[in-house]
Amino acid sequence: MTLTLTEAQSIIRDSLAWRAENGLKPLTVAVLDSGGHLVALAREDGTSTLRPEIAQGKARGAVAMGLGSRALFKRAQAEPFFIQAMNGLANGSLVPVAGGVLVKKDGAILGAVGITGDSSDNDEACAIAAIEKAGYEADGG
Amino acid sequence: MTLTLTEAQSIIRDSLAWRAENGLKPLTVAVLDSGGHLVALAREDGTSTLRPEIAQGKARGAVAMGLGSRALFKRAQAEPFFIQAMNGLANGSLVPVAGGVLVKKDGAILGAVGITGDSSDNDEACAIAAIEKAGYEADGG
Amino acid sequence: MTLTLTEAQSIIRDSLAWRAENGLKPLTVAVLDSGGHLVALAREDGTSTLRPEIAQGKARGAVAMGLGSRALFKRAQAEPFFIQAMNGLANGSLVPVAGGVLVKKDGAILGAVGITGDSSDNDEACAIAAIEKAGYEADGG
Amino acid sequence: MTLTLTEAQSIIRDSLAWRAENGLKPLTVAVLDSGGHLVALAREDGTSTLRPEIAQGKARGAVAMGLGSRALFKRAQAEPFFIQAMNGLANGSLVPVAGGVLVKKDGAILGAVGITGDSSDNDEACAIAAIEKAGYEADGG
Repeated sequence: MTLTLTEAQSIIRDSLAWRAENGLKPLTVAVLDSGGHLVALAREDGTSTLRPEIAQGKARGAVAMGLGSRALFKRAQAEPFFIQAMNGLANGSLVPVAGGVLVKKDGAILGAVGITGDSSDNDEACAIAAIEKAGYEADGG
Repeated sequence: MTLTLTEAQSIIRDSLAWRAENGLKPLTVAVLDSGGHLVALAREDGTSTLRPEIAQGKARGAVAMGLGSRALFKRAQAEPFFIQAMNGLANGSLVPVAGGVLVKKDGAILGAVGITGDSSDNDEACAIAAIEKAGYEADGG
Repeated sequence: MTLTLTEAQSIIRDSLAWRAENGLKPLTVAVLDSGGHLVALAREDGTSTLRPEIAQGKARGAVAMGLGSRALFKRAQAEPFFIQAMNGLANGSLVPVAGGVLVKKDGAILGAVGITGDSSDNDEACAIAAIEKAGYEADGG
Repeated sequence: MTLTLTEAQSIIRDSLAWRAENGLKPLTVAVLDSGGHLVALAREDGTSTLRPEIAQGKARGAVAMGLGSRALFKRAQAEPFFIQAMNGLANGSLVPVAGGVLVKKDGAILGAVGITGDSSDNDEACAIAAIEKAGYEADGG
C-alpha cells in the first residue's frame, strides 16, 4: 500500500493552502511513495533552484531510515559520521533536517512528505497539518 | 521569464487528460523552468520507480542544449560519443530520447516538459498538446 | 528576468576597478544567471588554478539556496552536516564562504556574483560595490 | 608563458564581433590558459544552460591532449573507447567536437579557445579568426 497520485496532489494543495493561511514563505513540497520515489512535487514561484532536491532529500531520508527527518537531524548533531555514512550509501541524496515527515497508517509507512522554504520547524508543521488532513498519521521524527 | 507553478500544474493536468483521452499508458510528467530546475511533477499510479528521473532527464537535456530531446536522440544515433560527452558534463542527468519538449514564447525558452511512460513518440505528442493548449510554442526537436 | 551578458561584463569591469582602487589582491569574478549558470567570468593574472571553480561555487550556492554565501558560512559553522548535505545534493559544487552575493531587483533574484582572491570580507565588499553600481540590490547573506 | 586576462578578453571580444559580422547564432566563448584553467568566459543572451561547460570542455580537451578538438573528434569516431578512457581520467570534462582551438606561439601552447552555439565548423572558424587576430597561431586539430 502506498500513496496515490491523487492523494499526493491533495497533500500538496493542502500544504500550500496551510502555508498561505499561516503566513509562511513560499515552499517546495515533495511527496514520495513507500519505495522512496517521487510521486508529485510543486515548487512555488520565487523559491531557489536547489529546493526540489532539498524537499526530496528530507522525505527520502525519512523513508530510507524509517524515521522522520527531525530524528535524523538529532542523530546528525550527536553523531555526524553516522549521517555521513548513510549519505555515502545514498549518494549524498539525504537531508537530515526537520521537514521530512513520514505518512503512516496503522504504523505502516505509506510514503513521506518533504517541505523546504521556511524554518525547518515551520516546514515540518506544514507537512504534519497536510498529512493529518488527509487522514493519515504524521511522524516528523 | 519562466513558467509559473500555476502554469506548470496546468500543463500536467492537460497532459494527463490528453493521455486518458488518447488511450496512452500511465505517464510521469515533469515541468522544468528556464534554468532547468523542477517546478512540478506528477507520476501516475502503477508507473515504475525511475520514471521521475527519466521525465526530468528528457526535459533537462532540452533546456541544457536548447534543443528538443528528439534532436538529441538523432545526434546520439549519429554521434554516440557526443551525447556521452554532454552527459559527462551533466553528471549523467540527460536523457536523449524524444519526449523532452521545449516551451517557448517568441522563440525564447521558458522551460521544458518531459514525459515518459508510453512510446517516445506518444510521450512527445502528449507534451506538445499540453504546451500548445497553454498557449506556448512546443519544440520537440 | 535575468542578467544579460552586457550587465555581467560591466559588473566584472567594475569589480576589478574597485579592487585596484582599494588595493585588494588580484581576483577572479564569476557572474551567474538566475538559474545558477555562468554568464561571464574573469580571472586576473597570477591567481591560482582553482579560483574559477571557487568563484562559481560561492555564487552557485547563493542562487541554489536563495541566500548570500555569508549566510551559508554561518550555517556551516553552526550545522556542518547541513552544508555537507546541500553539497551532496549539488555534487560538491557549493562553496559556503562569504563572497557569493545575490543580485536582486525588487526582491527577485536575477543572478549572483562570486569573487575570490582576497579575504572573504573583501571579496564580498567588492561584489557588493559592483552590484550596487549596476543599480541592483546586493544580498551578501 | 600563458595568455593574460587582457588577451583572453580581447579574444572573446573579437570572437563575438566576428560571429555578428558572419551571421552566426549567439555563442559562448571560453579561454583557458596553458594549464587548462579558465581565464575568461562570455555566454551570449539566449544561449542554453550547458554552453559554459561545453565551451570549456572543447578547450579543455585541446589543452589536455595537446591537440585541437577536431582531432579528438576524428579519434572519437575511429576509436570511441579511446575518448571514453580520456574522459574517465578527466571526470567527463572533455568534449571531443570541433571548436576547441589551441593558441600557440612558435609551436608552444599558450592556452585554448572553446566556442559553442553554431555548427562545430563555424564555432571553430570563429575561434581561429579571433586567435589569428591576436597574433597567435591557431590549431583546430
